[in-house]
Amino acid sequence: MKPAPTIGGYLIQRLHALGVRHVFGLPGDYVLGFYDLLQHSPLRVVNTCDEQGAGFAADAYARVRGLGAVCVTYCVGGLKIANPIAGAFAEKSPVVVISGAPGIGERLRDPLLHHKVRDFDTQKKVFEQLTVASAVLGDPQTAFAEIDRVVHAALRFKRPVYLELPRDRVHVPGLRTHRPAETAEPSDRRALRAAVAEAAERINAARHPVILADVEVHRFRLQDAVVRLARRTGIPVAATLLGKSVIGEQHPFCLGVYEGALGRPEVRRLVETSDCLLLLGAFLTDLNLGVFTARLDPARTIYATSEKIAVGLHNYEGVRFEDFLGALSRAPLHRRALPRFPRPRPAGAGVRRSPRAPLTVQGLFARLNAFLSPDDVVVADVGDALFGAADLFIQGRTDFLGPAYYTSMGFAVPAGIGVQIADRTKRPLVLVGDGAFQMTGFELAAAVRHGLDPVVVVLNNRGFGTERPMVDGPYNDVADVRYHELPALLGAGRGVRVGTEAELAAALAAARAHRGSFFLIEACLDPGDRSPALQRLTARLGRRV
Amino acid sequence: MKPAPTIGGYLIQRLHALGVRHVFGLPGDYVLGFYDLLQHSPLRVVNTCDEQGAGFAADAYARVRGLGAVCVTYCVGGLKIANPIAGAFAEKSPVVVISGAPGIGERLRDPLLHHKVRDFDTQKKVFEQLTVASAVLGDPQTAFAEIDRVVHAALRFKRPVYLELPRDRVHVPGLRTHRPAETAEPSDRRALRAAVAEAAERINAARHPVILADVEVHRFRLQDAVVRLARRTGIPVAATLLGKSVIGEQHPFCLGVYEGALGRPEVRRLVETSDCLLLLGAFLTDLNLGVFTARLDPARTIYATSEKIAVGLHNYEGVRFEDFLGALSRAPLHRRALPRFPRPRPAGAGVRRSPRAPLTVQGLFARLNAFLSPDDVVVADVGDALFGAADLFIQGRTDFLGPAYYTSMGFAVPAGIGVQIADRTKRPLVLVGDGAFQMTGFELAAAVRHGLDPVVVVLNNRGFGTERPMVDGPYNDVADVRYHELPALLGAGRGVRVGTEAELAAALAAARAHRGSFFLIEACLDPGDRSPALQRLTARLGRRV
Repeated sequence: MKPAPTIGGYLIQRLHALGVRHVFGLPGDYVLGFYDLLQHSPLRVVNTCDEQGAGFAADAYARVRGLGAVCVTYCVGGLKIANPIAGAFAEKSPVVVISGAPGIGERLRDPLLHHKVRDFDTQKKVFEQLTVASAVLGDPQTAFAEIDRVVHAALRFKRPVYLELPRDRVHVPGLRTHRPAETAEPSDRRALRAAVAEAAERINAARHPVILADVEVHRFRLQDAVVRLARRTGIPVAATLLGKSVIGEQHPFCLGVYEGALGRPEVRRLVETSDCLLLLGAFLTDLNLGVFTARLDPARTIYATSEKIAVGLHNYEGVRFEDFLGALSRAPLHRRALPRFPRPRPAGAGVRRSPRAPLTVQGLFARLNAFLSPDDVVVADVGDALFGAADLFIQGRTDFLGPAYYTSMGFAVPAGIGVQIADRTKRPLVLVGDGAFQMTGFELAAAVRHGLDPVVVVLNNRGFGTERPMVDGPYNDVADVRYHELPALLGAGRGVRVGTEAELAAALAAARAHRGSFFLIEACLDPGDRSPALQRLTARLGRRV
Repeated sequence: MKPAPTIGGYLIQRLHALGVRHVFGLPGDYVLGFYDLLQHSPLRVVNTCDEQGAGFAADAYARVRGLGAVCVTYCVGGLKIANPIAGAFAEKSPVVVISGAPGIGERLRDPLLHHKVRDFDTQKKVFEQLTVASAVLGDPQTAFAEIDRVVHAALRFKRPVYLELPRDRVHVPGLRTHRPAETAEPSDRRALRAAVAEAAERINAARHPVILADVEVHRFRLQDAVVRLARRTGIPVAATLLGKSVIGEQHPFCLGVYEGALGRPEVRRLVETSDCLLLLGAFLTDLNLGVFTARLDPARTIYATSEKIAVGLHNYEGVRFEDFLGALSRAPLHRRALPRFPRPRPAGAGVRRSPRAPLTVQGLFARLNAFLSPDDVVVADVGDALFGAADLFIQGRTDFLGPAYYTSMGFAVPAGIGVQIADRTKRPLVLVGDGAFQMTGFELAAAVRHGLDPVVVVLNNRGFGTERPMVDGPYNDVADVRYHELPALLGAGRGVRVGTEAELAAALAAARAHRGSFFLIEACLDPGDRSPALQRLTARLGRRV
């Protein structure tokens, strides 16, 4: 008779079965036993420099592969990833947090064990705020069922979950009779049929239907269904910034990014005057809506997400987002001529700039646009790295990642690590401001260690460019650093500093030719220069400061 | 009639009145208005590279000055300091967390504003787990009273507190009639008299009384009372690792550091065989007790902390720690001859080592001991930087800082910033392992910016030296980095790599002569080399992995 797997073993087995191949994190004594188990499992451990980096990397990995995992020690490791996990929650990225912890046997009489904060469950209480499900795997009788329940919640809601593994439970066998639970939750078939029928009727009756696709289309991997729907019906597709690259931007029916009054006026007009707007997998956030400059009327909207399906003012219960979108894309819909609209133009196209004049943000993005190839994934940090990148022309799907709602600085460098670990055929183009680079840029040491070769463009405008136009003071200055010297410190990679478009073009060409380690381009920008998108955004945000 | 101060103004005023002169942190749009107010106040803003660094710096500042403050933006800033604030909670450091937040007026109808995680109060719920008091300053009628209550709790319990300032409340006036509340909480005089009388009687009757002083003696600034008590009675004083340097280690009655079976045997014998042990301000943590190798009998103990006063098995209610210790130090106590005990010897003294042989941990600490001057403050990170440093000979009081209970890696470099900002007459000697340096070492950019000049010794053994002896694997390796090249990146400071004692001695001499910017010494150590203290600790900890 086969012995029951151990709790640690079962957790690894389930993650592997669900497609996870890498676990990000750093060890500590409360989690060492589990690390040893990981080391001898089919999962690969990916160390970062700091746990914060591991959290962001796991988030990006989850965005690319559908599920990610980060493994940390108790409190001193776990609490360092509170912010990245909060970001994964806010932007719907399914990350499994695995934390070591003092053994159940050690907790008797409540001793002051190292790393303890207030009580033994302090860390769990914190993560209850930041995840959709959590469990302490203390009881071998229930541990397997708890693992199933919690991991299922990550997949169901595309949000992070928390599993705490006391160190004296890692090697304890669970229930031998346990079988992974059946987790399919089918839609209510009548409600599904009715919702799709009403939606199809509205679409067919509409004169100017438009699709606005957002983040959940990525997370539920429904890009094909959206493309099919658009192709069959001739309905153009816009994306929010968080949803950018939900379909390749070379598609003739791709409208580009919609950002309310902050974005391109022709996209705004088409979306907001549509008599039937299909909001697919959408988050109605302030940044997605151009700080609430969007005018979207629910009565003229078909709204479908994992949390709600509504056609106009009719809500439908018990209908799964993926079922609805799948059925709608196969429904009897009229084909219509694609309306005329100005194609999204690559950033900076048609603007005359001198290749020897000081580099501008606009010139930077124009050159980046020319540089992009189908194997690149753009990973954007907060600031112009993100908002200016809205107009980059992304060819593949889910090839643009950025914290476009939660907007936590420090995301991009470690996220670039997660992206390339998740898909070695891709090369990350990391766009990061100087302020954000100072937070997590050291993680390039981890990139070196794991043989990754991101192209990293540091937009160095010597400060917090998003804040300067709102209220400025010395607190918006960022310490002056010679970022291009990083290869000397890390003993690997290449770095150049560029101040003109000609220099940038040469650097990008060199970066394309350079493989096997990171290539860092420090782009010197004027502190007062910013993209038109960021100018509009900060003018709007500044009113509320 | 004078107008009432604004909520933001009153908060600044109270912090200033309580001795705070600097606020650590990074701005963000939800806190920009308050940053602008800070900029025009008597408080100085100290930017770090990442919020994590600001949290550690504020903790160290609080340890030196008695109260610290860190100011961050909502969630993306606040959640980054969950771990440093947890450390401040665990080790009793009074840090006021000030977080910006969406305006109360913006929260209506629960919109998805950027940086929001689950609900608007998610961040507050997280910090309720990590602080002793918290408030959202949303109501002008109660804001001043809430500020008083929360800041008082930080001072009373020497633990962090949380104040959330919605951005539309910064400039709103509070109650004009408000006066800061009277916060003195006197001891119950009868209980105090009885406790001191019984303690004095026990001490006088004892044959071998010993004082074991710990962290709260630092936090309540009762070092004078301890010295007076020791001097008047001839009772020797040991300290825990967290309490190290509670009195200067040149005092003839200083026993050195007590760590149960992990420390020096003569200290252990004196402490554990004492017939009257005065445990003053002590935390009975696993690391303070040598992973529970300590044998301390409550019946033979006088135990005094801010949370409990007990003489033997008699507990006394309503007696304040500072009143008890003050009264005891003035009580009628017999003077006795100081018992004979071997004086603590500087680390590595008497061991023959060759100045040209590869550097050892023991040799490193011997040289550091010779280097230390009274103006230095040793700031230790986790690992041998901390445990090996137990035997350093600290001359001043509270001139040794380390996370000796919570043991969060990444503490020391930013804490060094906090120490020197708190007291410009001091120079931090930062001891940090390579793993910890990769987490927060970039903060030296902030040190450069603020004109600080720590001496930073990176103990580079290419891995997590505390974990290797427990369970080893590639996950304990740390990416190879040329730390001494950091000055090229930061455009300031000096860096040298040393591999022998002779090179270290030369580097230390150069560091002493160098002022105005950091001096980094990368000390190359064998991955298998560790201090005797760390060897004993890891042998003990390894049993529970």
